[in-house]
Amino acid sequence: MTLIEGGHLLTAEGFRAGSAACGIKDTAGALDVALLVSDSPCTVAGVFTQNRFAAAPVQWCRRLVPGQAARGVAINAGNANACTGEQGCRDARETAATLAGLLGCSAESICVASTGIIGQPLPMERLREGVRRAHESLANTAESALAAARAIMTTDRHPKMAAAEVNVSGRKCRIGAMAKGAGMIAPHMATLLCFITTDAELAAEDAQRALRLSTERTLNRITIDGDTSTNDTALLLASGASRVRVSSTGELAAFTAALSEVLAELCSRIVADGEGATRTMQVSVSGAATEQDAELAARAVAESQLVKCALYGADPNWGRIVCALGYSGAELRVAGTRVTIGDVCVFDGGMLTQRDAAAHMAADRVRVVVELGVGRAESRVLTCDLTEEYVRFNAEYHT
Amino acid sequence: MTLIEGGHLLTAEGFRAGSAACGIKDTAGALDVALLVSDSPCTVAGVFTQNRFAAAPVQWCRRLVPGQAARGVAINAGNANACTGEQGCRDARETAATLAGLLGCSAESICVASTGIIGQPLPMERLREGVRRAHESLANTAESALAAARAIMTTDRHPKMAAAEVNVSGRKCRIGAMAKGAGMIAPHMATLLCFITTDAELAAEDAQRALRLSTERTLNRITIDGDTSTNDTALLLASGASRVRVSSTGELAAFTAALSEVLAELCSRIVADGEGATRTMQVSVSGAATEQDAELAARAVAESQLVKCALYGADPNWGRIVCALGYSGAELRVAGTRVTIGDVCVFDGGMLTQRDAAAHMAADRVRVVVELGVGRAESRVLTCDLTEEYVRFNAEYHT
Repeated sequence: MTLIEGGHLLTAEGFRAGSAACGIKDTAGALDVALLVSDSPCTVAGVFTQNRFAAAPVQWCRRLVPGQAARGVAINAGNANACTGEQGCRDARETAATLAGLLGCSAESICVASTGIIGQPLPMERLREGVRRAHESLANTAESALAAARAIMTTDRHPKMAAAEVNVSGRKCRIGAMAKGAGMIAPHMATLLCFITTDAELAAEDAQRALRLSTERTLNRITIDGDTSTNDTALLLASGASRVRVSSTGELAAFTAALSEVLAELCSRIVADGEGATRTMQVSVSGAATEQDAELAARAVAESQLVKCALYGADPNWGRIVCALGYSGAELRVAGTRVTIGDVCVFDGGMLTQRDAAAHMAADRVRVVVELGVGRAESRVLTCDLTEEYVRFNAEYHT
Repeated sequence: MTLIEGGHLLTAEGFRAGSAACGIKDTAGALDVALLVSDSPCTVAGVFTQNRFAAAPVQWCRRLVPGQAARGVAINAGNANACTGEQGCRDARETAATLAGLLGCSAESICVASTGIIGQPLPMERLREGVRRAHESLANTAESALAAARAIMTTDRHPKMAAAEVNVSGRKCRIGAMAKGAGMIAPHMATLLCFITTDAELAAEDAQRALRLSTERTLNRITIDGDTSTNDTALLLASGASRVRVSSTGELAAFTAALSEVLAELCSRIVADGEGATRTMQVSVSGAATEQDAELAARAVAESQLVKCALYGADPNWGRIVCALGYSGAELRVAGTRVTIGDVCVFDGGMLTQRDAAAHMAADRVRVVVELGVGRAESRVLTCDLTEEYVRFNAEYHT
């Protein structure tokens, strides 16, 4: 498995992307519609937000995955089509039908995804026109992949893409992906908007399993503000264009590992681009009784407002980390708990051991390693700092 | 039950308070030791942090409550005596023994509490001297009560006190209290530092039950930053000086209700004085399947960084509130969920109903009322806004 430098959504064969500016975003002329289309019917898998107020596009997609006859995805940014009632469901279906009409397939072959403001009806006239113009721009080029990654951005500062080449039983296939993130990021079983392509050939159930496992290891292990959105969607489309078939247990494991790497790469970019973020922190917990406990502990540290403020201030505040572990609910041995920042062990045997971790806490990517001293389970969560800019941005944003 | 305007810790009879400045706080001359002493052996009850790294003073007190032979409490601010190992336990005991020596009782009659920086050994020479000088200043006056309330402050802007007169079977007794709060506030089963006196006569088990119930309703229903500290302690001392005996079920209920009111009053003051806070928000949830669900939902809204930023910006961002309810884990009916800000219903039947809640969101005390449409259980959580000042303060603070 090799991550491909400069790789993108169309690094995998059998797909085209298109985009258009149709005036859903406030900024005049900003791209806000993106299409991902497969050259022929393909396998589709998806994981979605666990939020009880799941948006209309999420409700639409849930019925279509896993499936074998997908043709594409229509995405808009600037309006989430969430909390929009029956009208929202009709609009999601009509968006799918618009693209389906242009491709000559059924609406049920098209997934949809939306991100942006909650509670406003989609401006359907503009969106239909946007889908038409994006369809005209469909192309299999790096430029069209980049434009699509830009079109799905909301408060993101940078487009986010990644790709890898995978070796399956001695033959090469590819995985490409794009995502948007920035705020309201604490996925649960799925996350934000993330679109993944592969030219490997997979059965729908296998694709679903690979996506679910990879998501659990990557997208579900990041947090920017602890808020899980109504629109989180990750979709995997497998074209089979490489004619590399992924079917045995070993092949599926290799594919899942590669998919996880691609998603992990996207996760780094999402968290580094968190609203107001200046640096990231990876919290790795080992020695837990169960994987659930390891995650509880890692998440408590990564979501602690006080730890995130200390990260912003580059202060190796081990007391706040230990405090978060203490209230996490994870089983731990007080005397067996060890906290390391960078490569400096700051806490062991219930007490401070070293003060000199300031340089490690000022790094762009801070690493915090925790040992709970109970069992052998482990987990990791990736987060960013909590900054004055985050607060200002989210206080000034008005509905 | 009547809250007493200007009431304080010594409003209840049978107690004296003292304080001293002994140089544990950084600020020269700042009061940092407080004593609360009962004139004769009294009943003591206590509830404490659930943090696994409970500080040494918490470990000391846990062995003493509930009890019948307490004589007082020695408190210091500026150093939490947390994560200080065996030395910390010896120091907590020695602090108790120092006051016990001055009062002529056993160390086991004295509770101790500490708040401040974590992981530093207590400066025992200064603290012993502080306890001695505070003992010389013991008095039963409003001034000594106020000085004690100031001595236990850390990042608090204001001292926090409250008191009430209670009618028990036609006879009057009193409850007094003081607390410190400000940051690392999300108590679980107990909270921060809170000291309560009463001149009612209670059996130790009854005092413990009353304190536990009242705490569950009040101190455990506030959150400033979602971080539960290592030192949370609430102690109730009952002198019996009024000769009003609280023993029947009805009397205990009346006493508990009054105690809850006093603590609720302190809670308002603690949250309003939250680090960087400019306004407070009470989230009331009803129509839940269970009380646990109601609390889950209320806490998700009250702890959402995005909701707290919207509160700071005075933006009635119902989308963030609904989103938090959706990921809270509480059972709800999407069509039966209703959200009211002030007296404006903003969300009902899965959709936005009204936009004009901006004036209510700009109030000093914002009220958010949520109906989940499932059952009859309810809960409330009180919180404050998340501000740039909170982030600045907690990023600039260096260990």
